[in-house]
Amino acid sequence: MGNIDGIEVIGLIAAVLTTAAFLPQVYHTRKSKDVSGLSFPMLLMFFVGVTLWLIYGFYKDSPALIFANSITIVSVCLLIIFKVRYHNRKR
Amino acid sequence: MGNIDGIEVIGLIAAVLTTAAFLPQVYHTRKSKDVSGLSFPMLLMFFVGVTLWLIYGFYKDSPALIFANSITIVSVCLLIIFKVRYHNRKR
Repeated sequence: MGNIDGIEVIGLIAAVLTTAAFLPQVYHTRKSKDVSGLSFPMLLMFFVGVTLWLIYGFYKDSPALIFANSITIVSVCLLIIFKVRYHNRKR
Repeated sequence: MGNIDGIEVIGLIAAVLTTAAFLPQVYHTRKSKDVSGLSFPMLLMFFVGVTLWLIYGFYKDSPALIFANSITIVSVCLLIIFKVRYHNRKR
């Protein structure tokens, strides 16, 4: 992995901003237990996409991509868990 | 810009999956005109983040990042426009 240079700082700020913008969704869903707006195929698609971004980040030697997508994978997994749990609960 | 090799294909699939997962949100918001769940500071944060990702993508010589974030910038701009328009309309 290369040194953390100027462009990696930009990448890491980008990573923090876009992952941080995603966290309120996780919090909101956990609080409200309202998963009606979350589509399961969409969540799975997003999960696969983020996993591929992570693999891509390793190949591109990009700390920012690895950092951002590791956190996002956790967020997406939480949303999938909420979706399954609260979806069943409502029936 | 380098050739589109194997890892770029992975990156581009990742880009398609994660940007495609974002489009239903734009469509849903446009249809429902319900912007109550969209926070303005969060949208701005996301906009800045995606812009920085785009800059990062150019520096990292990454077609996948440039492609994904160009489309996402348009999506975020649409959401910001919807937020402003439908927020005012409700008052």
